[in-house]
Amino acid sequence: MDAEQFREFGKAAVDYIADYFETIRDRPVLSNVQPGYLGDLLPKDPPQNGESWRDVLQDVDRIIMPGITHWHSPHFHAYYPTAHSFPAVVGELMSAGFGVVGLSWIASPAMTELEVVMMNWLGRMLGLPEEFLNCSEGPGGGVIQGSASEATYVGLLTAKEKKVKDLMEEDKNLTEAEIKGKLIAYSSDQSNSSVEKAGLLGSMVMRLLPTNKEGQLTGETLQEAINKDKAAGLIPCYVVANLGTTPTCAFDNLEELGPICKKENVWLHVDAAYAGTAFVCPEYRHLMKGVEMSDSFNFNPHKWMLVNFDCSAMWIRDAKYLVEAFNVERIYLKDQHKGLAPEYRHWQIALGRRFRALKIWFVLRIYGVEGIQKHVRNQIGLAKYLEDLVKKDSRFESCSCSMGLVTFRLKGDDSLSKKLLQKISDRKNVFLIAGHLNGKFVIRYAVCSRLTEKRDVDFSWKEITEAAEEIVPSKISSQDIPDKKSIHALDIKTLNGNIEKSK
Amino acid sequence: MDAEQFREFGKAAVDYIADYFETIRDRPVLSNVQPGYLGDLLPKDPPQNGESWRDVLQDVDRIIMPGITHWHSPHFHAYYPTAHSFPAVVGELMSAGFGVVGLSWIASPAMTELEVVMMNWLGRMLGLPEEFLNCSEGPGGGVIQGSASEATYVGLLTAKEKKVKDLMEEDKNLTEAEIKGKLIAYSSDQSNSSVEKAGLLGSMVMRLLPTNKEGQLTGETLQEAINKDKAAGLIPCYVVANLGTTPTCAFDNLEELGPICKKENVWLHVDAAYAGTAFVCPEYRHLMKGVEMSDSFNFNPHKWMLVNFDCSAMWIRDAKYLVEAFNVERIYLKDQHKGLAPEYRHWQIALGRRFRALKIWFVLRIYGVEGIQKHVRNQIGLAKYLEDLVKKDSRFESCSCSMGLVTFRLKGDDSLSKKLLQKISDRKNVFLIAGHLNGKFVIRYAVCSRLTEKRDVDFSWKEITEAAEEIVPSKISSQDIPDKKSIHALDIKTLNGNIEKSK
Repeated sequence: MDAEQFREFGKAAVDYIADYFETIRDRPVLSNVQPGYLGDLLPKDPPQNGESWRDVLQDVDRIIMPGITHWHSPHFHAYYPTAHSFPAVVGELMSAGFGVVGLSWIASPAMTELEVVMMNWLGRMLGLPEEFLNCSEGPGGGVIQGSASEATYVGLLTAKEKKVKDLMEEDKNLTEAEIKGKLIAYSSDQSNSSVEKAGLLGSMVMRLLPTNKEGQLTGETLQEAINKDKAAGLIPCYVVANLGTTPTCAFDNLEELGPICKKENVWLHVDAAYAGTAFVCPEYRHLMKGVEMSDSFNFNPHKWMLVNFDCSAMWIRDAKYLVEAFNVERIYLKDQHKGLAPEYRHWQIALGRRFRALKIWFVLRIYGVEGIQKHVRNQIGLAKYLEDLVKKDSRFESCSCSMGLVTFRLKGDDSLSKKLLQKISDRKNVFLIAGHLNGKFVIRYAVCSRLTEKRDVDFSWKEITEAAEEIVPSKISSQDIPDKKSIHALDIKTLNGNIEKSK
Repeated sequence: MDAEQFREFGKAAVDYIADYFETIRDRPVLSNVQPGYLGDLLPKDPPQNGESWRDVLQDVDRIIMPGITHWHSPHFHAYYPTAHSFPAVVGELMSAGFGVVGLSWIASPAMTELEVVMMNWLGRMLGLPEEFLNCSEGPGGGVIQGSASEATYVGLLTAKEKKVKDLMEEDKNLTEAEIKGKLIAYSSDQSNSSVEKAGLLGSMVMRLLPTNKEGQLTGETLQEAINKDKAAGLIPCYVVANLGTTPTCAFDNLEELGPICKKENVWLHVDAAYAGTAFVCPEYRHLMKGVEMSDSFNFNPHKWMLVNFDCSAMWIRDAKYLVEAFNVERIYLKDQHKGLAPEYRHWQIALGRRFRALKIWFVLRIYGVEGIQKHVRNQIGLAKYLEDLVKKDSRFESCSCSMGLVTFRLKGDDSLSKKLLQKISDRKNVFLIAGHLNGKFVIRYAVCSRLTEKRDVDFSWKEITEAAEEIVPSKISSQDIPDKKSIHALDIKTLNGNIEKSK
């Protein structure tokens, strides 16, 4: 394919995407296919000779589109949002178009340097402490990781390496294996499953501590756990605090956790994957008070900041520890260019890197800070609007409302709410998933698509109440309302299981 | 930005990329900027209000383009290729345009299922044993990872988990920490630095064993190392064999290494990052003889198969071990949908995934198998052509020629070749880097860009010989040829250092 054909194909693809977004509200949010549908539509082997791009584009429509779950439908309310905006899409296009790989500064200086500046822009937008930023005098710095999972894991590996070094310096008789076998990490039972996975992959026991009624890990609980482990001869090493938990978007209190981590010399990593974007609005920054006591901080512009996946922003207060853990040359290179051109391959698991800073730059320039603030406040407002609707209906109880996430249930036994979610799922007009809060089954409603408007929340509420009508009629009536729909393909267990994996 | 503006912006970006490729031959391959150039061109903070996309696109040209090292210039011969093709670029565009995240099958069935089929297509194209493929009856399967670094690391973590389980089952008195502290991995001193990094991150000693004169790890060397470690009470766990080493594209002999790994119950991972693509041509498959004895196999379509970064194809003979190591639920889910719809989040480090199968599909359909074969054979032919030119000039020695990679040097002391590379680098018309072979300094010439033609190899050779003329004149002459150019900004150490990180 030459450049002229690319002009045709690329522009046809742009139109296809634009058309898709202009019609997305009318598409069924959930795919209707059965497992294995696609294998039946494709040959067992690739074609021997090249085909026309027009045939391929037609097949996207015929084969791929029926198997797409429309994350940007205004009726998608599952998990958390994954970001999408047109400037970010063009950013991805140009990144692929240039096709450079950032394995070092010289491999494309613009790539490293735009990342340095974008991480400063993001940090200032959120009001992070200056010492975390690349532009500070000290050893702090920011880097784009692929996901919050990766950031949590990178933090854990760094904390491990640091702890081993610290202890071996203190006591020359200790062996690496001895120390590693005793290291313990902590987070709350409200953490995303990626936190547990980080412990699993990093061979560190991850204690998922119980939270209070608000879903927060308290300082008292953490301190007790640390005391108990130390008494048993174990070595506390790493704490993951949540700013915005997956089930209910609860915020751990960093002012409680921070001083304990300092005192115990434990690495404090803050996971603000979804909710971190809200700190662009000054009125929410009180929720990260104490962040200056953390050692690393992460949020995903690819969740709520309109920058397409993957784009996870991570800052480390002292990047020396990270580079020491990840660099096989064990040379700290930041100083080489006075922090202007860090060798980012030593800040992450892989060596190669895509030009992800480009899409951040496009989004921040074309939306501006006010555009992002407006987006965040709008989505929080829509969640509040749903909460109000829930509260006005006496059959329901509203269980939580934080940022763009509401949880609610039918009053009474869990089985009622389970039945309700099943009915909503069967109708396939909106996509919600289940959660648990204080031992109770709840339905989780996240405002995800940037296209969602008040009328879409009304549409959701109509879907919810129409389904509820079949379980708990709003007017007392002697009529039996028949349960017409049978349970079918979309397995409720699949849905329930998924809330834990939404990062 | 609405869909109508996106049509304009997206199409302008398509034209920008097409124009870029139509003029890439005339651009200086290396960027001329100094570290920190970009920070001076951008404000310290993002704009408060949104700006026009036209201004942003102009700034791409003004600010970004000067800091790009042109990987797809026909004069780029450093590292190994990173793939680029227009079908792949459109694949990335559409993947971003749909903006779906594959955290589970239901999160977009087409995404998981196209990946399943593409991994089968790729496996069959390469002639991999059927038991590695998703479409086989057994527990084998393929998955797209981000990079060979990741694949090597994922293999190591899987091997570790399996070994710990095996040994704890054999001897109930052993503890996990005890076993983990004794595990050893092996590869050759010709391995990419990502292999050493995998050991570092996975807390497993990685022995980089010496190779023979051809740069291959022999069975004898591996067996000796294993015997020695076992005698010292250590536990051999993981071997990374190279099919195409980074310095010279040497191929380890799997028929020697495989039986040893089988006998010693050690996980054998095959890293064919660059050269794996060559197996699309049947005449090169003899180089992977013995692959059926490996436990996992990886190559990067994003290196030589025209699929843009990132796209690393990994197969595991028994995916159960991988899922057991990576799944916090510890449930093997493949059976759930009879291998048609694996839950790929349990096959990798992160939970979220991009829709990368789309670009593979676009490339394979629009090029066809023959298109890929033609590309590979063409690039190998160009490398041979350069080797012939080197051989005809008595001042030079050709040191290796394998696939699209040639290494050569000036006869005599290393200092001559170092001086030559410095002179070539100073001219900035072609981009070559250094390597080492059998203790000697060599210059490494990789055919990287799909745009490189015979005339570009001639151009390179003219650059090389003109620079050589200043060191070793081709005709004996009493004239002193002045060394006009001084050593400047482009640090030779940076260049030399980079060959090890080209994945």
